[in-house]
Amino acid sequence: MDNKQLFENIKKKGSFLCVGLDTDLTKIPQFLLDTTDPIFTFNKEIIDSTAEYTIAYKPNLAFYESEGLEGWRSLEKTVHYLRENYPDIFLIADAKRGDIGNTSSMYAKAFFEKMAFDAVTVAPYMGEDSIKPFLKYKDKRVILLTLTSNIGACDFQFITDGITGEKLFESVLRKSQGWGTTENLMYVVGATKAEELAGIRKIVPNHFLLVPGVGAQGGSLQDVAKYGLNHQCGLLVNSSRAIIYASNGQDFAISAGESAKKTRDEMYELLKIHNLSH
Amino acid sequence: MDNKQLFENIKKKGSFLCVGLDTDLTKIPQFLLDTTDPIFTFNKEIIDSTAEYTIAYKPNLAFYESEGLEGWRSLEKTVHYLRENYPDIFLIADAKRGDIGNTSSMYAKAFFEKMAFDAVTVAPYMGEDSIKPFLKYKDKRVILLTLTSNIGACDFQFITDGITGEKLFESVLRKSQGWGTTENLMYVVGATKAEELAGIRKIVPNHFLLVPGVGAQGGSLQDVAKYGLNHQCGLLVNSSRAIIYASNGQDFAISAGESAKKTRDEMYELLKIHNLSH
Repeated sequence: MDNKQLFENIKKKGSFLCVGLDTDLTKIPQFLLDTTDPIFTFNKEIIDSTAEYTIAYKPNLAFYESEGLEGWRSLEKTVHYLRENYPDIFLIADAKRGDIGNTSSMYAKAFFEKMAFDAVTVAPYMGEDSIKPFLKYKDKRVILLTLTSNIGACDFQFITDGITGEKLFESVLRKSQGWGTTENLMYVVGATKAEELAGIRKIVPNHFLLVPGVGAQGGSLQDVAKYGLNHQCGLLVNSSRAIIYASNGQDFAISAGESAKKTRDEMYELLKIHNLSH
Repeated sequence: MDNKQLFENIKKKGSFLCVGLDTDLTKIPQFLLDTTDPIFTFNKEIIDSTAEYTIAYKPNLAFYESEGLEGWRSLEKTVHYLRENYPDIFLIADAKRGDIGNTSSMYAKAFFEKMAFDAVTVAPYMGEDSIKPFLKYKDKRVILLTLTSNIGACDFQFITDGITGEKLFESVLRKSQGWGTTENLMYVVGATKAEELAGIRKIVPNHFLLVPGVGAQGGSLQDVAKYGLNHQCGLLVNSSRAIIYASNGQDFAISAGESAKKTRDEMYELLKIHNLSH
């Protein structure tokens, strides 16, 4: 899916929402534990009730790996279900991978061949040859960690290069642009760092950004839109817990749908204000 | 396993070798593809023929994930086999994980509870709260990426902080020492950067280091020992391809054993020279 198609989908749905599938057996409605595959059952219900308002889904790999083989199976089923039933959805493996070249090639195979993800999140620490293998795949993307939403972001990401005067996350933005294109490279920028978005947009005016941290982590959608929107929207704003755990009763899927719709409605207003709607 | 026990094992075997299980279906002897679980069969044979010379094994997660559910099953079987048959082995998940706190907790659960790894490699880009959840586990370790063995290491790891004058990898070493101890924190330092080891040893004199890059990547064991050994050895030197793919014929396991023995013999001489042998 190229940027043009992504923007078309955003206009069609009036939404730039990504729903994070951080599916945790201790947080889903407990009556689901009696089903044969609670993780998949939960995901399927959440997807069916939110897809109308959603551009992308982002399974968080840690939550599946923490359940071992069963979790991995539930993930594969979820990906398959999305591909079969919602072909227009942009599908992100939130995996934070990255290793030496021959190993990154194997991670790329895992997410782009074994499973039909459109994109995978990658950590930049190991540099160009850890990222390039993912970029060899046509119509697939790397979403590079840049400025993350957590407190620990301040430990290293703001270190200022004594020679160039750039902060580390700015170096990541600048250097990585030479490795990919606006079509196969995106960046993670936390909503909790919205004040940095204006500066980031100067370095990468045309790339799509994946923005986590709205919702449970406290970032503001208004601020993200104000500083982050570009001519093609250019944003996928993720919300996980605030949507998928809106209720843990029998009405969990309905509540998730309502929460997603509420976010979509806010997004639609923001798109209209910025002349980015149909 | 604490540092004292690790050092005891090193002295007993005269080795500080870690064998990397980067098991790739396109590289293992092709007659193994007729077995029901070629990855596990290969690993079992390699382990049985090399364990005498080896302190640690390091499955590289990417190679298992690239085979999907089957790969994950082979990994679980490998870990179980090692735990059952070689209880003294130090077992590293080479996973390069790291995410916001609640997600890193899930990765910790995956590797320390669902599977009985002793340690997991973690990328430092997201800072303290991405690493701390792994350190909550008693007798388990984080091995933090510091100075990696690949060319891309030069993209960001040598960026010099304009205020402190530290390189990024030095900041990682210094800051992270406040997050853990010499018992639950180790560092990845590539053998291809052996000339930096002397400086690294000044910052972390007592930590164990995991050193990849000897063998196929071209690092020198002599140089690593010269600059990296400490009073408890303090090194686990990894070799993957040079050992496990020493032959791809019927004699593959015997050849792997011979290759591991050869490396062990070199290591034993180095330990003797540095008065670190029994």
